[in-house]
Parts: sequence; structure tokens; C-alpha cells
Amino acid sequence: MHFDEPLSLECGKTIEQYDIVYEAYGTLNAAGDNAVLVCHALSADHHAAGYHSETDKKPGWWDICIGPGKAIDTNRFYVVSPSNLGHCSGSTGPRSIDPKTGKAYGPEFPMVTVKDWVRYQKRLADLLGVKQWAAVAGGSLGGMQALQWSIDFPDFVKHAIVIASAPKLSAQNIAFNAVARQAIMSDPDFHEGRYYDFDVVPAGGLKVARMLGHITYLSDDAMGDKFGRALKGDKLNYDYGVEFEVESYLRYQGESFVNRFDANTYLLMTKALDYFDPALEKDGDLSAVLKDIPTKFFLASFTTDWRFSPERSKEIVKALTDAGRDVSYLEFESNHGHDAFLVPMNHYLDAFKSYMSNIEVSA
Amino acid sequence: MHFDEPLSLECGKTIEQYDIVYEAYGTLNAAGDNAVLVCHALSADHHAAGYHSETDKKPGWWDICIGPGKAIDTNRFYVVSPSNLGHCSGSTGPRSIDPKTGKAYGPEFPMVTVKDWVRYQKRLADLLGVKQWAAVAGGSLGGMQALQWSIDFPDFVKHAIVIASAPKLSAQNIAFNAVARQAIMSDPDFHEGRYYDFDVVPAGGLKVARMLGHITYLSDDAMGDKFGRALKGDKLNYDYGVEFEVESYLRYQGESFVNRFDANTYLLMTKALDYFDPALEKDGDLSAVLKDIPTKFFLASFTTDWRFSPERSKEIVKALTDAGRDVSYLEFESNHGHDAFLVPMNHYLDAFKSYMSNIEVSA
Repeated sequence: MHFDEPLSLECGKTIEQYDIVYEAYGTLNAAGDNAVLVCHALSADHHAAGYHSETDKKPGWWDICIGPGKAIDTNRFYVVSPSNLGHCSGSTGPRSIDPKTGKAYGPEFPMVTVKDWVRYQKRLADLLGVKQWAAVAGGSLGGMQALQWSIDFPDFVKHAIVIASAPKLSAQNIAFNAVARQAIMSDPDFHEGRYYDFDVVPAGGLKVARMLGHITYLSDDAMGDKFGRALKGDKLNYDYGVEFEVESYLRYQGESFVNRFDANTYLLMTKALDYFDPALEKDGDLSAVLKDIPTKFFLASFTTDWRFSPERSKEIVKALTDAGRDVSYLEFESNHGHDAFLVPMNHYLDAFKSYMSNIEVSA
Repeated sequence: MHFDEPLSLECGKTIEQYDIVYEAYGTLNAAGDNAVLVCHALSADHHAAGYHSETDKKPGWWDICIGPGKAIDTNRFYVVSPSNLGHCSGSTGPRSIDPKTGKAYGPEFPMVTVKDWVRYQKRLADLLGVKQWAAVAGGSLGGMQALQWSIDFPDFVKHAIVIASAPKLSAQNIAFNAVARQAIMSDPDFHEGRYYDFDVVPAGGLKVARMLGHITYLSDDAMGDKFGRALKGDKLNYDYGVEFEVESYLRYQGESFVNRFDANTYLLMTKALDYFDPALEKDGDLSAVLKDIPTKFFLASFTTDWRFSPERSKEIVKALTDAGRDVSYLEFESNHGHDAFLVPMNHYLDAFKSYMSNIEVSA
């Protein structure tokens, strides 16, 4: 979808025109009230469900809960899944050509926030004929967008599905992001973000950033169960090659990420996370922000998620109950850490499906 | 102390000669049985107590518990604190000149392990006239040395003081080390460890490694209390400069570390941590390794330490009790994370002092 109307951003800059790539599944009803907006997290994109070709090894990132008969049932719902502004998989982002200069935006691409994304998503909804989201749903950074939607366009969102998320980053969360950015920005191939002009990518830095990210997505237990101290070879080599399986896994994750993701987008996404703090406008009182909104909430968290622990979800739940809002909250046993929201577990998927099946939409 | 006798290392290599710098406090008694060996962790060194000059801003790293009337009471004990082989503060390490080549060892410096350190420390004890350590004490990687001492030279160690430590690294611990090493080794100024020859240091990589380390030393709570989401300036700038105080703190920590620490030593120390696994020789059965040793144990852990959580100390405690050994274990409430073992807290210092005061030494 091409947007010609300029979008004023929270950072004070304006993006004059932009493209948003999205996938849609199911059919919009005549009333325009059976649409579900699916919001992606840091490294995912618009490809949320299904396969693009028979040779695809993996389906979309939330295929476990989007499709016929699944939690977000495409027999009932019209599902819209955009890649966010600033991303690197088709929507306008730092790698895109700035029409003003004829060159890639690079570091000139403006900082984008969760609030900015909600605003382009509203325009997308209007263009698609959506009158009200039956639900806005997402995990992690995606859940933050669902929460922001309920604040900025409360009458447009019947239900907000906020999974494995947080009302704002903690100092530790910000610190991990800062280290990831430092790794990218201190890579000599970064060239202050203008690496496209040099036909290189800051591969070393982006790899370190992704390796670090991966540790925070998995629980200590899950890494222990999956890798323990298993060796890659049959004995210790006492050198700086890979000794342990977990090192091999992380290097592989880092390397494959470099091939599919843009470093400037990684920087932007971590900053969008850092800046998210919807309670700020009410001096940190989240319940005051959520006071008069009609949206109903479904929140879920996972026991071993230490990136956004259950306590962080409970902060949102407390603010919602303090504000007298309608909220369902479930904490699921899982050893998958933060990644649990992407993992098919019956108790989680059943509860999600049960909640979604109670959402009423026009025939 | 200069050592001319070659030291055969676990990695299979031999170091022909080496220097060990150490500090000593107090006086060795005639029986040679009032000595306490203090073992340092990853980034500390031989300077464990006191000040070197009036302009020093900070005392030695464990000054809170070494000195007259303190837990390790220098009125009673003779305290020996060496910088480990491989370190960069005076003992022979990668930055030292290899007499065979006349150039810095760099990447040719052999991999050293906790077991290797215990062996040079035994030689140091013999040269100093120590007949038996009244105690071997340390936190984190230092605690691992105390544990290894009790296994390798059980009759030489009356008490092992193992604080905020673990019987071996978890997959997550190894993963964090792997990311730190990746950051250093992918810095183009690393030059495969031969950066001394190029008159540069891999500053960017070492900075990232240290920033990451710092996050794991502090608890989420401590970072929240200390920094929260406080801004560095008076408003958000929406750029890649420092926005939050915690970013500023981490950058400062990273930069000051680059000025005082050698990247090759950082690599070596993280590998020594990775390799530590004394139960390996008995197929993972730590209690079997600890079965027949006379050493008595004092272990301590801290509630918010997530690098080496209380559960990791309890693994050692369980192995010791299973082996029928004499062990005291205390878990202290603290929000200082892993760094708690370096923080003056009365309940911790009092308990430590109480234990040490019951250690009998000759007059």
C-alpha cells in the first residue's frame, strides 16, 4: 500500500510518502468489523501465516495461531499483518530510496515509535475499509502496539491482545539494546549508517547484536535443556573455535540473521522499544492513561520469560484493573522464555482461541 | 615472583617460565599455617586490599573484607593475593614478551584453566613458606579456584570460601561469554590477537564485551533502582546518542575498561570460566569428586544474582552434603546481583567474619 499523505512523527520529523507491505488472510465482512490487526515484534515482518511457496522451510512467524480453525480463525476474521514503517522487508525503511536524494535513507531515516506505527496502521485500516478492529494482537513489541492502539484509538479497538509484553522497558532491557546498538555502530563497516553507499554491511556487529538478542529470548532452563554443556566435537580443543554446541547455535543464528536483516532497521526497532512508555503523558500513571477506554484486554505471559517477565504483564493488568477495565490475564508454564509466544503449546493456544471465539463480529 | 620451572597446562602446552605478581598482607606465622589465598574473578587482579597511594580513588577489590579486624583479619592471617597467569596487570600473560620470539605472546599464549592456576598457586605457596592454607577464598571465578584447590590439594586447604560461584557454567553463561568473545574477535583492530604489533587495541569489541558483562553483574532490580528510565538530558532527542542514564553508565564502564584491560586476557578469562567443570573427571558427579577431602566449606550466594544464582551454589552444597562433607551455606538478601560479593553489607560481612574467626591457626 502506498501512502502519499505525509506522516508527522513523534521525533518531530515528517515522512512525506511511504509504502507499507502487508499480508491479509480471510475476508472482510460488509460491516468492516471482523478485522484483526496482527503486529510484529523486533525481527519479524508482515509474513505472519502460511507458506509463500512449497520450498519454504518455515511458515509465517505466528502461523501457530492464524488460520482456519486456529485462535485467530481466518474463517471468521479478516487478518491484516503489515511490516512496520522502518522495516527492511518491503515497507519503507532505511534501506529504501529517499525520493528527495535518490539514495538510500540510511541514517537520515527518521526515528519511528510505536505511536507512529499505530498512526500509519490506522490509515491502513481506513484504506482497507476496516471500521473497527475486532482485535489488535501481538507479542512483545507487537503487544506494545496493541496497547498503544487501545490508548490512541480506543473506539477503534474492541479487544487488545497483549502477549509477553511490558508497559515500558526496564533499565536492563534498555541496557541490552544499548549493547546491541554499540556492537553495530562500532563496526567499521557501519560507516555511520551509510554502509549501502560502500556496498558493505556491518556484519560483525549485527551478528553480535543478534547473538545477544537470542540469549534474552531463551530461558536459562531452555538453553540448559537444549544444549547444556554439550560439546560440538568429541573433545575440548582449547582454542577459540567453537567448543560448545550453544556457541555453534548462536553463531549460526547470528550469521543467518545478517543475511536477512538490515542493521539500520535493527537499530530503529531497538529504539522504538526504548522509547515506548505510554504512561509518560500522565506522569507514569498507566491506569490514568487507560481510564476511559472501552477496549477489552487479553494478556498472557510465560513463567520463564526474563526479557518481559510475568511481573511486567502484571503491571499492565494492575493498571487496567485500577482503571476499572475489563481484562483477562493468564500466566502460562513454559520453559521457552520470551520465545514462548511463538511456540505451539496447547494450554496457551487453547486459551487464546477460547478468548478469540467469544469476540462477536457482524455476519 | 619469578618461576623458572616449566608449567604443563591442561591444554597440553607448557609455559617455560613466568612471573606472578602478588600482594601480601599480614605476617606468616612460624608454622606457616595462617595463610589465606585470595583468588580474583574475571576482571580483578592482585590488588585486593588497601590503597597504593593517597590519590587512589578506590581501594583493592575486596578491601571490604581484608584488613585488620575485617573478615579476613590481617592481624591473624597472612593474606596472599596473586594476579593469575594470563592476566594483564603484571603476571605473565598475552601482552608479555615471549622470550622465545622476543615479541608479545598475543594469540600464542596458551589457554589457561582454573586447574592450571591452582598449580602455579601451589608453587607460590611453597616458595612463600606456606605449609597449609588456613583458607582459600574467592567470589565468582575466584570461588571456582577455591573449590578446585580443595579437590586438587585437599590436605593443603583447611577451608574453602566459595562465594557467588557455580560448579560449572550453564549454557546461558557460556553463551554470554561467546557473545563477548565474538565482539572482540570480530573487531578489525583485533588482528587475530596480534594487535600489539599494529599498535592498536580492539577497543570497540572490548567495550561491547564489558558493557555486556556489566549487565550480567547487576540485577534487574538494582539497575531499575539505580537508573530506571531516567534520561541523561532533560528531554528525548530521538537520535543514537545517549538518551538514558543507563546507556551513559554502560558506555563509561566500557570505555574505562578498555584503558585498563587487555582484550586477549579477557578472552582467556572467559575461556577459563567456560572450561571449569571439576565434576567432569567423575562423569559429572561432583559429590564423587568431593568424597574424601578434609577441607571444610563456607558458601554464600545472593538472592538477585542471576549470573550465578543461589541455585548454582546449592548444587555445590548438595554435592558436598551428599559426599558427607562439612559445609556452611548462607543465602543473603541483596539487590546487588552478582556484584553483591564486592558490596559492603553487614549481614554478609558479619557472617563471613564469624566463620573466619573460628578458623584455628598456630600462635
